[in-house]
Amino acid sequence: MRKALAIDVGGTKIYNTIVNEKGEIISEIEKRHTPKTFAEIKQIFKDIIACHEDEVDVIAFATCGAVNNSNNGILGSTGNIASEYPTMDFSALSTKKKVFVENDANAAAWAEHVIGASKGMPYSIMITLGTGVGGGIILGNKLYKGKNGAAGEMHFKMRTDKHRQCTCGSWDCFEAYASGTGLKLTAEEISKNPDITTYDVIDGWKNNDVLMTKIFNQWQNDILEGLIGLANLFDPDVIVLSGSMAEFVDEKYLTDAVNKEIVTTPTKVVKGIAGNYSGMIGAALLALGVDSVGGSNG
Amino acid sequence: MRKALAIDVGGTKIYNTIVNEKGEIISEIEKRHTPKTFAEIKQIFKDIIACHEDEVDVIAFATCGAVNNSNNGILGSTGNIASEYPTMDFSALSTKKKVFVENDANAAAWAEHVIGASKGMPYSIMITLGTGVGGGIILGNKLYKGKNGAAGEMHFKMRTDKHRQCTCGSWDCFEAYASGTGLKLTAEEISKNPDITTYDVIDGWKNNDVLMTKIFNQWQNDILEGLIGLANLFDPDVIVLSGSMAEFVDEKYLTDAVNKEIVTTPTKVVKGIAGNYSGMIGAALLALGVDSVGGSNG
Repeated sequence: MRKALAIDVGGTKIYNTIVNEKGEIISEIEKRHTPKTFAEIKQIFKDIIACHEDEVDVIAFATCGAVNNSNNGILGSTGNIASEYPTMDFSALSTKKKVFVENDANAAAWAEHVIGASKGMPYSIMITLGTGVGGGIILGNKLYKGKNGAAGEMHFKMRTDKHRQCTCGSWDCFEAYASGTGLKLTAEEISKNPDITTYDVIDGWKNNDVLMTKIFNQWQNDILEGLIGLANLFDPDVIVLSGSMAEFVDEKYLTDAVNKEIVTTPTKVVKGIAGNYSGMIGAALLALGVDSVGGSNG
Repeated sequence: MRKALAIDVGGTKIYNTIVNEKGEIISEIEKRHTPKTFAEIKQIFKDIIACHEDEVDVIAFATCGAVNNSNNGILGSTGNIASEYPTMDFSALSTKKKVFVENDANAAAWAEHVIGASKGMPYSIMITLGTGVGGGIILGNKLYKGKNGAAGEMHFKMRTDKHRQCTCGSWDCFEAYASGTGLKLTAEEISKNPDITTYDVIDGWKNNDVLMTKIFNQWQNDILEGLIGLANLFDPDVIVLSGSMAEFVDEKYLTDAVNKEIVTTPTKVVKGIAGNYSGMIGAALLALGVDSVGGSNG
């Protein structure tokens, strides 16, 4: 069975493992801190590839940042990783094996589509709720990337009065409300306590604390408002919520509430099941040309 | 040259004409008031078809309401037209010619794509700004319809505090702010005058009235906020604004302002050029299988 060396590149950690064409992780997961400099990042990539490329058929990166439609380079900014990172020439990293690169959220959406929560459904939107928010859109069983590869950014406005600045530099994006960071900011606003943490809210909500439940519900309702817009724009089979914060949301409540408000046809809101390493799995499946309908994506 | 009998069905008017495969209107445009009852609507369709079907190759409806992916029936509600209208069996209207049906905004988007403002651009979003707001999405040179055909509804939230109810029953959708109706509501809020009209605002803005200009700018800024989200989700080549209210917007301002805020790659905001009958033109082109790249849509 064919295999990919999968490498997940985030602003704080770099992971790697080997994934087969069934989407199974078949070796140990290695983990490193993402170094500060571009030179050190490149060295880590070279070390990982040198160590493992003889074991695999292809090298698959799941990376922060939008990836161009040729799946070989990065478009624009990438958050808190070294500023030269977008100049990386991924294809030059190995002379022996083909190198494939995809945005991490797109890759995770593909993993859910092929082996996870949106399996068998041609139209899906995946949203990762973590420190930030990522997005991946599958339309007609294909990863949707837009004209250059940057599509699927969950930066649409939740209000228009410049209330909360987003990490993207603009104001009041979905990310600024639906993320873990957004939950903390909502908690600060409602509790008037600048030291309140996401953990405080989740812990209090689990223990039926009235104030923490109010904060949690406001956060979940903001997510709901965003999902309504996505369902009306895309008429998807399913919206998949994954990432560290997704475990707390109520799928049934969100499904019912979305379907009560939309003008398009009924959809579902479910939690992702492809796991914490879905980015590596999805990148590997894409690199190996594995899709959900017995063909390749493209 | 092949021709279509094109019929535009709205809540207040029904138009028909003949369109050739170049997207040219080649006969008089007939106009009727949309009758109240479903029986009368069906009779008008039969009369139009009986009168013209021998002159054409295919019959093309551009209709209010979402049209299913088989392009032969209507999904769900359709605003202020007879409530039984969604039960219409379009294919039974003619035994001589194939009958094709598409949502009016989708059809107008297709007209812009094939012969209009988004010609030559594979990824476009068209928004009609009229009494309400319509939307049509073209992705990879194909009309995007979602899992059932209802996609492209411009009902995403502009705020989350239930400030302004939308025609769809939900609250604070883009339509409720970006439409002509939205402009009137914004004018009422800012001027505190419940009798102010859209005409008052446009007229005052043209004459540099300070208050009317403030209202106009608020309306245009709400449109801008919506376009930012669409550009971040779809990474489109272009966003086309058409409909009766589109003539007043500033394309250059919107293009510059969108590109300043998005995290995706630069896009353009332009006005539609396919004209007032773009719905009939687009439906005819779809029915005749004419696309922008020398093949057929689907």
